[in-house]
Amino acid sequence: MALHPAIFTLITDFGLKDPYVGQLKGALLRGCPAATIIDLTHHIAPWDVVGAAVAIRTSYRFFPVGTVHLVVVDPGVGSERAILAAAGDGHYFIAPDNGCLSLLVADHRIASIHRVEEPIFFDASVSPTFHGRDIMAPVAAALASDGHLERFGPVVEPITIRTVFPPKAIDAAGCLHGQVLGIDHFGNIRTSIRADRFDPAAFAFVEIGGRRIGPLVRCYQEAETGSLLALIDSAGFLEIAANRANGAALIGCAVGDPVIVHLGTGETGAGGAE
Amino acid sequence: MALHPAIFTLITDFGLKDPYVGQLKGALLRGCPAATIIDLTHHIAPWDVVGAAVAIRTSYRFFPVGTVHLVVVDPGVGSERAILAAAGDGHYFIAPDNGCLSLLVADHRIASIHRVEEPIFFDASVSPTFHGRDIMAPVAAALASDGHLERFGPVVEPITIRTVFPPKAIDAAGCLHGQVLGIDHFGNIRTSIRADRFDPAAFAFVEIGGRRIGPLVRCYQEAETGSLLALIDSAGFLEIAANRANGAALIGCAVGDPVIVHLGTGETGAGGAE
Amino acid sequence: MALHPAIFTLITDFGLKDPYVGQLKGALLRGCPAATIIDLTHHIAPWDVVGAAVAIRTSYRFFPVGTVHLVVVDPGVGSERAILAAAGDGHYFIAPDNGCLSLLVADHRIASIHRVEEPIFFDASVSPTFHGRDIMAPVAAALASDGHLERFGPVVEPITIRTVFPPKAIDAAGCLHGQVLGIDHFGNIRTSIRADRFDPAAFAFVEIGGRRIGPLVRCYQEAETGSLLALIDSAGFLEIAANRANGAALIGCAVGDPVIVHLGTGETGAGGAE
Repeated sequence: MALHPAIFTLITDFGLKDPYVGQLKGALLRGCPAATIIDLTHHIAPWDVVGAAVAIRTSYRFFPVGTVHLVVVDPGVGSERAILAAAGDGHYFIAPDNGCLSLLVADHRIASIHRVEEPIFFDASVSPTFHGRDIMAPVAAALASDGHLERFGPVVEPITIRTVFPPKAIDAAGCLHGQVLGIDHFGNIRTSIRADRFDPAAFAFVEIGGRRIGPLVRCYQEAETGSLLALIDSAGFLEIAANRANGAALIGCAVGDPVIVHLGTGETGAGGAE
Repeated sequence: MALHPAIFTLITDFGLKDPYVGQLKGALLRGCPAATIIDLTHHIAPWDVVGAAVAIRTSYRFFPVGTVHLVVVDPGVGSERAILAAAGDGHYFIAPDNGCLSLLVADHRIASIHRVEEPIFFDASVSPTFHGRDIMAPVAAALASDGHLERFGPVVEPITIRTVFPPKAIDAAGCLHGQVLGIDHFGNIRTSIRADRFDPAAFAFVEIGGRRIGPLVRCYQEAETGSLLALIDSAGFLEIAANRANGAALIGCAVGDPVIVHLGTGETGAGGAE
Repeated sequence: MALHPAIFTLITDFGLKDPYVGQLKGALLRGCPAATIIDLTHHIAPWDVVGAAVAIRTSYRFFPVGTVHLVVVDPGVGSERAILAAAGDGHYFIAPDNGCLSLLVADHRIASIHRVEEPIFFDASVSPTFHGRDIMAPVAAALASDGHLERFGPVVEPITIRTVFPPKAIDAAGCLHGQVLGIDHFGNIRTSIRADRFDPAAFAFVEIGGRRIGPLVRCYQEAETGSLLALIDSAGFLEIAANRANGAALIGCAVGDPVIVHLGTGETGAGGAE
């Protein structure tokens, strides 16, 4: 399943001000000089493992089979926390064992996980503050060459899973409860509610910040300019947005705020209306 | 004219916080695993078609012949607006039909344009909110393989052109009128006035924000440190700047402000002086 | 020593808002279509030669031997300042002669330097405001093809060195004096004090902003969450930070602030305590 030349993606909380991302790429290129390296994002909030878990869950499948994905949000760098190398759905993943891969596990996308322990794959000099560059990158380069996980260390199971936004059943009132997972560059509100958790035909409205928004539209343009709308986003989750305007600013909502989908007729909904 | 391996450039309003740019690159790599992908900018203001049109006009020619340029500023995504594939000056361009390519057309750089309609080239699953990833990227990858536009759909003409900053003739007072198109990272003021619209030897001064700046210098260093200056920028347009200082902040100007080039002697100029 | 395909790194003060970085990459690709180009940083403060010198010193060695590093922080662009092409430690460097390479010279990493003078290697049209794109990029592409510096122009020696943070000897009180070189995305405080300038076993504490921090720890996790700590960073310099918190904000320090390492016992230290 290895790709030639290899493709790598990166998700980090490093930002782009400092040369850290570039140094990590240098380490990948030392192991794999013909590599293609794609930035998924370096703007995960510092130490935000949940944000990293969401980003890799929604993004890996747009890459060719055989891609190696590095997720380096690692507040415990240098401590005893393990580093994991995983495979599933035709892709490879390397991340600290701190929850970064937990949503992929929850989605049943991971077939096997090994703990990375064999220092022969590491850089000759490992800084205790930069395992992304000195351990994960050289391991990723080795993994890209043949796709074999077992040489890095033993199988681990169960991994340390940080449970993030556990899906809930539809409640007695016909409501599905979730929360705001993120607000994107356009002010679109990404939620934890997967579109396959409800019947779109039964969608009445979504309740957020004291407002009721619905029914579902297909694209931004189907709402009036400046108006709020709800749709299924390009990753398969419920999104609340506005047409050519900043939906999050209009609503005044923040990450973690509750989001409630009301199924059935509009009359079914409990709770505040506009 | 196709390049092997293919080179792509990207201009978007996606920003770099979210994994959208990376997902679009993944889609390019699925179609063209050896692609080289270069970011021109992802910081076009959200939905700013004019900004995108300026960026592609000033940047495409620095790339090898055969490069495929994607311009994804697409407020109408998912609606009936067309997607265009164009060729000219040895380059290829893919963008929504909303004005992004209109300055290239105005500059007579485009030889042929086709409407992208054949879903066989699209991703198997097209999100109505992300045509950049699910339509434009796979079409771009196909285009890079042989440079044939006609298979994507019919020739279109005239395209929907959003007319941006139409050039004006020199007026009776010997003045050339334009405006501030953008302010760059250094505070340099980019204008809509092309250097080939006037004789540099006749340039007396440029009037902006109540100030008169001139004559033209060749480079920043030719002005005193902190002083305002006017020169021809690296894209062939009149620029107002300051040596090692933020020219836009010194003048207090903004995008859209009028810029007037006075030709002939300094005495010719009408309007406010410092 | 040339790499095939070539690898280039970039350090600039261009930011990422404008298409300048992309245009420079286009020029590299015109000379070397299979190039791999890695961004080290484009967020050097405008015209900050010292910041550029620090970034290249700490980053180049993580790349494969044969990599060509461009450092384009060039406030004197278009003036008579020279452009340099240098080699050393298996790497190549291209930068204006304004101090960008001076820390590499101070570290004895540079074996030879030539002045870039032969216009046959330049772009056919050189903008006086963008030598990075029109001179340095095509020269870098030529250099990557065979590693020969001498054809670009004559050997220069001594180069114009801007002396930055000259290392000082340990003073009579057993103290080593340095300063804050930068504050990274996480709020970690990077200092000018190289770890090989003192015996870690003799490290008592570091004094910064009226606080005493010590002894040295190995990684962030070894301090309490939110607590200040001192360690050796991933580039081999003394760093002051906090575990999962913004160390610079906790201390309230800024670039240029003094940093004093006290060697021997804690009692040896002069100056303020917490």
